[in-house]
Amino acid sequence: MDSNSVSPMPDMAPMAEFDKTPPTPPEDTLPMDDLPPPPTTVTVQEEKEKEAHRHYEEENEWGCGSWLEYALVMVLACILLLASLGLTLYWVIRHQEGFAWRDDPKRQFNLHPVLMVAGFITFSGFSVLLYRICRCCRRIYVKLLHTVFHALAIPCVAVGFLAVLDSHNLALPPIPNFYSLHSWIGLVTMGLFAIQFVVGFFSFLILLCCEGATAGFRASLVPIHASFGLTTFMLAIAACLTGLTEKVFFSLGKDEYPKWPEQALIVNALAMVLVALGILVSYAVRSPTLRGDAKVCVTERL
Amino acid sequence: MDSNSVSPMPDMAPMAEFDKTPPTPPEDTLPMDDLPPPPTTVTVQEEKEKEAHRHYEEENEWGCGSWLEYALVMVLACILLLASLGLTLYWVIRHQEGFAWRDDPKRQFNLHPVLMVAGFITFSGFSVLLYRICRCCRRIYVKLLHTVFHALAIPCVAVGFLAVLDSHNLALPPIPNFYSLHSWIGLVTMGLFAIQFVVGFFSFLILLCCEGATAGFRASLVPIHASFGLTTFMLAIAACLTGLTEKVFFSLGKDEYPKWPEQALIVNALAMVLVALGILVSYAVRSPTLRGDAKVCVTERL
Repeated sequence: MDSNSVSPMPDMAPMAEFDKTPPTPPEDTLPMDDLPPPPTTVTVQEEKEKEAHRHYEEENEWGCGSWLEYALVMVLACILLLASLGLTLYWVIRHQEGFAWRDDPKRQFNLHPVLMVAGFITFSGFSVLLYRICRCCRRIYVKLLHTVFHALAIPCVAVGFLAVLDSHNLALPPIPNFYSLHSWIGLVTMGLFAIQFVVGFFSFLILLCCEGATAGFRASLVPIHASFGLTTFMLAIAACLTGLTEKVFFSLGKDEYPKWPEQALIVNALAMVLVALGILVSYAVRSPTLRGDAKVCVTERL
Repeated sequence: MDSNSVSPMPDMAPMAEFDKTPPTPPEDTLPMDDLPPPPTTVTVQEEKEKEAHRHYEEENEWGCGSWLEYALVMVLACILLLASLGLTLYWVIRHQEGFAWRDDPKRQFNLHPVLMVAGFITFSGFSVLLYRICRCCRRIYVKLLHTVFHALAIPCVAVGFLAVLDSHNLALPPIPNFYSLHSWIGLVTMGLFAIQFVVGFFSFLILLCCEGATAGFRASLVPIHASFGLTTFMLAIAACLTGLTEKVFFSLGKDEYPKWPEQALIVNALAMVLVALGILVSYAVRSPTLRGDAKVCVTERL
């Protein structure tokens, strides 16, 4: 039997010689500084190992390239997150007659895209990126900010959801609810968002009251939470894109849309911003370079 | 300064006590058995370490739970990948009058959704999942199969693209191209797919001719390729969802769609299958349990 077929791991060894990216945590987990400290014997041994490897770790500090990549991705992501909200606001105010509540169902509808983009894209996007932006803060502060940003998204999503229900029910004649695939995707996204928030709030904040007993559970939940968090963000983008497709065809029709009026350009540009965000946020969360924040923190502050 | 704020890594230590998931590769990389074997001295030392840790590794073999999760995710993903193509075919043949080429632009269009779903979803999805399904094959065979499946997707996407261009240009009056956000997302997806295929083919197959010199480059490219591969799959799903939204509103209109005719149910079900695939494939690729295939292989065959 060829040894190649059974030993992929030893074959990874030469990577260390070539791979100059900063070292990453050993598992696909976010570091959690609220886990209980390891037993003293381990700590002493680790201290010795740190001492021995300090020079090695310093050699692995981020170079110019990594910092440039970090700055570029973060600045671009922040600009796009704000641009998505800005473009939606501009589109709705300039081309869809702005906002109203109850007295004008058509204008009440306009709250729906704005609040959904604000909640599901801008706030949620910043909330996800916090784990990459705040590189050397105490992890518990980042975690609290992550919760606050997601908590801010909740009223946006709730009011945005009420706005579309109201605008459908108060219209004359009433417009049916939950028939389109956009609405189904939106419901799935809201469901996943709610589960993620409740499970995350309970597991990563409430369970801190008995740190030691829940450390293993919380640690094993981190990659699942991160993975489903990114999936929720992608689903939110899919919901936005199908919603925009519906609305632009309702507003402009098959005949006007191809003539490139300003509204068509704005909506298509908004869709491209959302697509770019999907690529950029998933890259920022998963990139081994940008994910190596914990070890770099250790190196920098030792 | 609080030690918590600077030592997230040591705090991860207790995880080993609680976390019973199988061990994962140290970085977010797919193992590559075509990398050159490590120097002999390292191999000998590793052999000794393997000998010493064999019992430990055997203890970490997958339990019933992990196998159940693996089987469930893989079987469900395979069923959904086939269901997406099956539903598209049923919808197009039963509700959109089937296929034609050139002589009937309206029926020629029907090739577009079928071939795009076949190429971007079914073939690409199986191609991505191969790295999880084929758990103990030689990595080079999986890699070649991955290329073959993606190569099969190319003619589907190309003919699907020609079909929609033809059906627009041959219609009376001609329908404009590339105005909708669906078409823009589709173009971005095709671009990313092409880049991924060319870069992947060149880097992971052609560069094997000089294995040693390119090992580091290939190893550092793996997580980027995997990340952008998943992003391309997500974009393809977004393109499908926006395309389905367009087509179902063109076919049924605002008045018929809410009455739940069979076509509406089929299209919405297809959209839900695509959403489920987005969640499931991203979970299968990223889950630490399902990703731990390499180490389990080593353990099982040592």
